Amino acid sequence: MTTVARQMHLKSRPTGIPQPSNFTIVSVKLPEVGEGEVEVRNKFMSLEPGMRLLMRDTAFHAPIYPLDAPLHGRAVGEVVRSRSPSFEPGDLVMSNRGWQEAFVAPAGELLKVKPYPSLSVESLLSAAGIRGLTAYVGLIRVAQLRAGDIVFVSAAAGTVGMVACQIAKLRGHTVIGSAGGAAKVAFLKEIGVDHVIDYKAEPDFAAALRKAAPNGFDVFFDNVGGSQLDAAFQTANNNARFALCGTIAGFNQTDLIPLYHSNLTILKRLRLEGYVVWDHQDLLPEFQRELSGWVVSGRFKSRESVEIGLERAPVALAKLFTGESIGASLVKLY
Amino acid sequence: MTTVARQMHLKSRPTGIPQPSNFTIVSVKLPEVGEGEVEVRNKFMSLEPGMRLLMRDTAFHAPIYPLDAPLHGRAVGEVVRSRSPSFEPGDLVMSNRGWQEAFVAPAGELLKVKPYPSLSVESLLSAAGIRGLTAYVGLIRVAQLRAGDIVFVSAAAGTVGMVACQIAKLRGHTVIGSAGGAAKVAFLKEIGVDHVIDYKAEPDFAAALRKAAPNGFDVFFDNVGGSQLDAAFQTANNNARFALCGTIAGFNQTDLIPLYHSNLTILKRLRLEGYVVWDHQDLLPEFQRELSGWVVSGRFKSRESVEIGLERAPVALAKLFTGESIGASLVKLY
Repeated sequence: MTTVARQMHLKSRPTGIPQPSNFTIVSVKLPEVGEGEVEVRNKFMSLEPGMRLLMRDTAFHAPIYPLDAPLHGRAVGEVVRSRSPSFEPGDLVMSNRGWQEAFVAPAGELLKVKPYPSLSVESLLSAAGIRGLTAYVGLIRVAQLRAGDIVFVSAAAGTVGMVACQIAKLRGHTVIGSAGGAAKVAFLKEIGVDHVIDYKAEPDFAAALRKAAPNGFDVFFDNVGGSQLDAAFQTANNNARFALCGTIAGFNQTDLIPLYHSNLTILKRLRLEGYVVWDHQDLLPEFQRELSGWVVSGRFKSRESVEIGLERAPVALAKLFTGESIGASLVKLY
Repeated sequence: MTTVARQMHLKSRPTGIPQPSNFTIVSVKLPEVGEGEVEVRNKFMSLEPGMRLLMRDTAFHAPIYPLDAPLHGRAVGEVVRSRSPSFEPGDLVMSNRGWQEAFVAPAGELLKVKPYPSLSVESLLSAAGIRGLTAYVGLIRVAQLRAGDIVFVSAAAGTVGMVACQIAKLRGHTVIGSAGGAAKVAFLKEIGVDHVIDYKAEPDFAAALRKAAPNGFDVFFDNVGGSQLDAAFQTANNNARFALCGTIAGFNQTDLIPLYHSNLTILKRLRLEGYVVWDHQDLLPEFQRELSGWVVSGRFKSRESVEIGLERAPVALAKLFTGESIGASLVKLY
């Protein structure tokens, strides 16, 4: 018995925001499950800003997506056949085999996941997964959040941002968040962010930030880079720590976005630190334990934007850049 | 008996590199030495890049120099009269009363200094003083220099830079230094810098740095900012630490110099930290002890550019920016 599964391929490299016309769906027959292999049916796949970088032909930090071949990305699925002693049908697994409905892979590529009962399957691709951990690592390990810090979070309504805002709020901090559009602003108020900046409504982001943060801030959790980072230099308090996590502002641009105010790093004694979450996976159990407690007590709100069906994946990806998605952008595959 | 002393005043705010025409010399009669006061005759005064910032009318981090009033800056002088129990004639003192031949000041403004026998009076305004300490703090405390690090120092032939290069060399590191012009390049080779970049001879600094640092670098001690900092992002090794100490590149410019490559901070896991030496004076005794040992054993070479007479102070200042001075720029006042 063979399974037929649809895969999404990249047909052409996008310029600007990816369009459905850059993609094509291909149906394939999955191979037989060999010794030590597992067949998985994907339940949810994740769309992430960093995928845009892999669609360029100039990416330098990871293998780029080839044209006319399956894309990849994080997904959670269920084992349907197994010829590995490590997995049984019904097991929930995390893989890097998103963008397809089902696949056969060596058991070593898969990670068995057992969410806390309070956490949903899709949350493993959202707040409870690597992106939630990204927020936790940035605030706790990189920025070394301490009592009394005022925290500024950019792209605060994205997956990483919404978790960062809530970690900071639940630990008692004043939080300033930036996001674009009324829906995101409303969501951020709902999760308790103290001062929300709608960057799309502000002609001068630096002025808006100064107004939202009259007492400055001590920690900047940055997902955006570009003009928001540049403004942060101007409003940061002395000895502020910047956890640099992402530069979504530049992902769809060919030109590099200049910074003009980084010289303030010296006089303000700022510390800027870039990090990549994969270096910090040791913190995942600690983070999931803390998060689970908050979810059980009803104090943590997660949000996902879920599209249904593989054919919607390009749209779900584009929404990360047009600002239409709140929280994690996921596609439900079955 | 009253002393007549000459003072240098700022007559007009410079645009670009300060010119002698921006200054004027005024002769004043010093006041009588009051109770608790001291009269000091300055031996050496120091010219420093940061003075240029205080000549703007837009400086924000310190009181700017007023027009038609005495300038100030670090100086070493000798007590000639004292009505304070803390000082006696002949004592050597550090003050912030440079740009004048003599002055009367409250004893509390003065710091008695006793150089190690191996250190000269002028070295207290150079390698053995706050600027040498700046190098020490940047490498040891901020960048947390550790065995095996490759070190890149910008403005390496300046006071801070030449000390940074030599600390790194004497601790066994490979050192890359940038400076402008053949005389500075020769000086850096003389003090043992492994790879010297003459930025004035290089149309593409980023390419020159890549060539000088084929194995990248792990610590960047930056005095320059601007395009040298931007190039550093491109050549830095993963987990490199940048001690941001100065931005001399921008001091004579009205426009801010943009950075284009700071986004590499994330993927390379860089840590950038700005600092101000005055926060770290606790390290001065430790630093002077280490330096004195190197001087006694002949392994440390200091260099000062010394002009004679107060009237040469504007020229000495300008040479910091034209690149004509090597090491500390001092004026001998008597």
